[in-house]
Amino acid sequence: MGKTRVGVAGYGTIGQRLADGVALQGDMELVGVADVAPTLPVQALLERGMPYNFYNALPENPGRLEDAGIPVTGSLEDLVEQVDVMLDATNAGVGARNKDLYAKHGKKAIFQGGEKNSIADVFFHGYANYERGLGAQFLKLTSCNTTGLIRVVDCIDRAVGAERVVITIIRRVADPGDYNRGLTNALQIEAAPSHQALDLMTIMPHVPTTGILVHAPVTHGHIITVLVTPKMSIDKANLLELFGEHDRIRVVSLAQGFLGNASLFKYARDLGNPRGDMYEVAAWDESVVMSGKDVMFAINVPQEAVVIPESIDAIRASTRMQEDREAGLAQTNKYLGLAKHRPGRLR
Amino acid sequence: MGKTRVGVAGYGTIGQRLADGVALQGDMELVGVADVAPTLPVQALLERGMPYNFYNALPENPGRLEDAGIPVTGSLEDLVEQVDVMLDATNAGVGARNKDLYAKHGKKAIFQGGEKNSIADVFFHGYANYERGLGAQFLKLTSCNTTGLIRVVDCIDRAVGAERVVITIIRRVADPGDYNRGLTNALQIEAAPSHQALDLMTIMPHVPTTGILVHAPVTHGHIITVLVTPKMSIDKANLLELFGEHDRIRVVSLAQGFLGNASLFKYARDLGNPRGDMYEVAAWDESVVMSGKDVMFAINVPQEAVVIPESIDAIRASTRMQEDREAGLAQTNKYLGLAKHRPGRLR
Amino acid sequence: MGKTRVGVAGYGTIGQRLADGVALQGDMELVGVADVAPTLPVQALLERGMPYNFYNALPENPGRLEDAGIPVTGSLEDLVEQVDVMLDATNAGVGARNKDLYAKHGKKAIFQGGEKNSIADVFFHGYANYERGLGAQFLKLTSCNTTGLIRVVDCIDRAVGAERVVITIIRRVADPGDYNRGLTNALQIEAAPSHQALDLMTIMPHVPTTGILVHAPVTHGHIITVLVTPKMSIDKANLLELFGEHDRIRVVSLAQGFLGNASLFKYARDLGNPRGDMYEVAAWDESVVMSGKDVMFAINVPQEAVVIPESIDAIRASTRMQEDREAGLAQTNKYLGLAKHRPGRLR
Amino acid sequence: MGKTRVGVAGYGTIGQRLADGVALQGDMELVGVADVAPTLPVQALLERGMPYNFYNALPENPGRLEDAGIPVTGSLEDLVEQVDVMLDATNAGVGARNKDLYAKHGKKAIFQGGEKNSIADVFFHGYANYERGLGAQFLKLTSCNTTGLIRVVDCIDRAVGAERVVITIIRRVADPGDYNRGLTNALQIEAAPSHQALDLMTIMPHVPTTGILVHAPVTHGHIITVLVTPKMSIDKANLLELFGEHDRIRVVSLAQGFLGNASLFKYARDLGNPRGDMYEVAAWDESVVMSGKDVMFAINVPQEAVVIPESIDAIRASTRMQEDREAGLAQTNKYLGLAKHRPGRLR
Repeated sequence: MGKTRVGVAGYGTIGQRLADGVALQGDMELVGVADVAPTLPVQALLERGMPYNFYNALPENPGRLEDAGIPVTGSLEDLVEQVDVMLDATNAGVGARNKDLYAKHGKKAIFQGGEKNSIADVFFHGYANYERGLGAQFLKLTSCNTTGLIRVVDCIDRAVGAERVVITIIRRVADPGDYNRGLTNALQIEAAPSHQALDLMTIMPHVPTTGILVHAPVTHGHIITVLVTPKMSIDKANLLELFGEHDRIRVVSLAQGFLGNASLFKYARDLGNPRGDMYEVAAWDESVVMSGKDVMFAINVPQEAVVIPESIDAIRASTRMQEDREAGLAQTNKYLGLAKHRPGRLR
Repeated sequence: MGKTRVGVAGYGTIGQRLADGVALQGDMELVGVADVAPTLPVQALLERGMPYNFYNALPENPGRLEDAGIPVTGSLEDLVEQVDVMLDATNAGVGARNKDLYAKHGKKAIFQGGEKNSIADVFFHGYANYERGLGAQFLKLTSCNTTGLIRVVDCIDRAVGAERVVITIIRRVADPGDYNRGLTNALQIEAAPSHQALDLMTIMPHVPTTGILVHAPVTHGHIITVLVTPKMSIDKANLLELFGEHDRIRVVSLAQGFLGNASLFKYARDLGNPRGDMYEVAAWDESVVMSGKDVMFAINVPQEAVVIPESIDAIRASTRMQEDREAGLAQTNKYLGLAKHRPGRLR
Repeated sequence: MGKTRVGVAGYGTIGQRLADGVALQGDMELVGVADVAPTLPVQALLERGMPYNFYNALPENPGRLEDAGIPVTGSLEDLVEQVDVMLDATNAGVGARNKDLYAKHGKKAIFQGGEKNSIADVFFHGYANYERGLGAQFLKLTSCNTTGLIRVVDCIDRAVGAERVVITIIRRVADPGDYNRGLTNALQIEAAPSHQALDLMTIMPHVPTTGILVHAPVTHGHIITVLVTPKMSIDKANLLELFGEHDRIRVVSLAQGFLGNASLFKYARDLGNPRGDMYEVAAWDESVVMSGKDVMFAINVPQEAVVIPESIDAIRASTRMQEDREAGLAQTNKYLGLAKHRPGRLR
Repeated sequence: MGKTRVGVAGYGTIGQRLADGVALQGDMELVGVADVAPTLPVQALLERGMPYNFYNALPENPGRLEDAGIPVTGSLEDLVEQVDVMLDATNAGVGARNKDLYAKHGKKAIFQGGEKNSIADVFFHGYANYERGLGAQFLKLTSCNTTGLIRVVDCIDRAVGAERVVITIIRRVADPGDYNRGLTNALQIEAAPSHQALDLMTIMPHVPTTGILVHAPVTHGHIITVLVTPKMSIDKANLLELFGEHDRIRVVSLAQGFLGNASLFKYARDLGNPRGDMYEVAAWDESVVMSGKDVMFAINVPQEAVVIPESIDAIRASTRMQEDREAGLAQTNKYLGLAKHRPGRLR
């Protein structure tokens, strides 16, 4: 069987990383990426020598791209025609318009968390509901916080059952280099319950969840405190063991020097990861406490890259590359370097 | 009966506000304040025309104060001799040394939250354990976060009972103008459980409490999310009614424009409060959510001023100005302008 | 002669402080303030017991004000009819519409720096061009940075002449409590020359000026480095002496503990100033350096309050309360507590 | 001739990047890196599979390294014995002690900007004084700000002569992930003239320089405004042409989307550079203004990586790999990918 052919629409923070992630998959081919203007990421693509083909998502307006010297392979529609699956990481609202194009050509498409749920047939999370994505034409991924949160809740739920979840999200307010939004010396509270709590229940309807979100003026990772009421008794050692076995959760400690979200950002850069990215959520050893039978802990969600693995899972599910959840996840993890037990991999 | 005579040692962020708060009490006399050097607060006292007498806490070293032109009334010991009660807001560790001086002169003293619990006979919170402070010679106040937290937990506990508390503290990392500490673009996590959870249990041993603290790079108020398991059923309306009746809790809403900790800081300035201070914790209407029978909400703790009312309560308890808890609290609230139902007071 | 009657349109960050400043003038009467909705400042006015009369600037829409319980004295037009001068501190663009109302009633008006220069007959700065404002109907104030900058440049220019000015503005990006704009972990550069350099030349056309502005993610005061080429030779001691004599410039030093913009914000709060405000710009002793005959130094501009004195000067000039520049400035300074040589005033 | 053998002492922010930079040089061999403890960078080295040999700089205390599972090749002294040149990027003060070890073995060493000038025979900047480094045993590099500043001043000086320089440095206060220092919502001013101005004059004694430094609470690059009085007349177009030809200066524009220091950090990540680093300083097109014959502009200094090229130049000079300045610089630039006119390289 040939490789699955994938295109990426929207070459921003998420789109760039989707393209990089797909390019790492041995059983997929990145046909190209599409955007509308010579943004900084597109200029960087040019400076790198155009490792990915670029398609103009606004073909009626080629001027700015030409002026910036960006070689254009074709239009977004040209790209859509060539692929099996489109990953749509355009700005919220654009995906809904692009959907018509994908539908016209009978192609599958996977949308990011910013779009409305109604855009898709399935609201998808690789670990929690892989099976629901099998063969679906239009999938929507959970957003970054929800993706990271569901990883840890699903991990606990599969092992001992989760009866109830309560979260406090300390949300980084902007990505590094984002000048379009920002907070200065302020925490900002949102009306509760946070959408992440509601989204979790959409994916895992058997787990009542609520919580509060507070925006904080930082750029390097959301921190979520999670209180879980387990069905079967669990203690700190059990929890850390569960997380330690999960390919997309990294157990870290203050004692090692991981003092907060910025330590994890720095560490991923020190690893030499492209863009200094990290796919895993991190859970702090010293954060785990018990409250009666409930267990509480803190995780870090690296917002720029965390959704990439689950997005690639979505390709596998929607195209039925792997019918089996574990087989699908294992392939993604292998190609992204997330499989544990490999030499030198920190646990 | 004459007024209770009070002195303040340590004229920093807290000491200044203790002095201002005592000066507002109709039944107390602020004899003076003491510090060791012409810090900015002491220079401000001079520029204001020395409304408070100043005592040198380091009398063997008068030079820097003289050079700065600060009129000195006497030594710290001179101040101690004249008062009934000393409020000690010196840097952590200094209070332990000052205690010998207070003991030598048989005076009562009230220490701030930075000192070790062992410095005092009673670990005190005006609302939660006023009675334990009655007649005690040495009291230690809870720290700012704990003071604010206990206000809301005690409020619930007295009404419907509190069986369990779980907190996430988003801690402002420095006060405005503090150049000695700081975080830049980072959240920092501390080993759990946070000391505030442990401190709450010292004051309220019947309420099992745990939680996680995360430092955030802001200066205008801690935000705490609080999950309470009540003994008797309670809903959002009940909770807001309880808070609405409490003189040191202010119910606010996003709809009014209170978007976060910085809104409250701004509002207190707009009220024309001296230093732009606020004594009350705020609880957000839109933050209240239920998780089964548990209730969750978010509060703002204005760290610079929140401990002042409870510190003044401590004067009342230790000197037996009011034997009755409610009478003592009512006097403090009256003189600080916190009593509700007064005209124009927002609810 | 009766008091000059003044109204304030727009009760936001600047409008509140204009009202407070006018209320302090012994020869003016604050008739009232106007705004369109129960914003936090308007709610604070209510909680303070309505010390100022409030007028509805959107009389066709009384609902939100009524719902919030704000007592309304009349419409903006009612206010305009009663005053001699309107201070317009509405959002940029609104002032242009209000101007028609002021013109209709033949009233003078003073607009803030956010409006276009074309709104006014005179672009005004109390110290630099008081005479041009005499009798003018419509004046526009310089913006906060320009106001502070012109104070120091005018001070030097009057003493020794200024041949050339070069500035670097490190601009605080938002005020405390402003959730509408913000930067997070980023410096942002603007196209040079900055508008402040151009505005200075509009007021002081004989002083060629240029410079660069960089936004920084802080809220407590702009810092400007200023390089001045003087006509007559000047050294550091001369400069500090000039600044030391100026009622609206405060010479501060690192040695005293003034480490940056946040120290000045803290100090003004410690002074007990309403809202913790400071009217003066500060110049740092240790920042003064020579480059050949040029002198360079750094100033702090407290953006929330710095324009208030010059705005009140504008009332004096436009209504000819004082025909003489020095007499006008002296009155403003006296009532705002800025006159130097008074007891206890730091130099 | 064999490759020049290089070791790195101190594997922190700078040491890691020195190691990476040396590893890219076709005519150098990185023998290994040394540090004292399993810091996060050392843990990252382990997780990467130990691409560099690790030496224990504290051999009497092997425990923590062993506990962390770090394979140790030998002691720092073992490393020193094997190399031609040591790059010392240890904490300030440690280098002075290490110098004895380097001297004992007769090895050359290159120290970073944090050490005192007296540690070295030559205070070195690749472009400005390469010749002075030829054959020297001990060199000290300029610090990050000074390195970037001298690049642009030397570039102008060689073309048209520089008679005078005035700078304002807006200094990022900490690196990403640095929890040891920080500012929160504050600008901090330092006594002038800044050490960078003095350091520039040590390297370029013919250029009188002064200036002011202000710390800002950001992590992604210093911004410096530079005023240069040229000997021969120069305009904006000339300046940008000079910068455009320089291999270590990148001309950028607001119009392209480079809005500030964070844009450059983001762009380097988007380029896929390891750690998201950038070696070049950037100069903004729209920042260039004239003040009479003086020219003013703003540059960005990427503090984590900017000194790497000049440090590698220092190896070349001290070991006389290239006797000629231009030849030495060209080699460094070639291996670091900095040589301009290569395909796809943005100008």
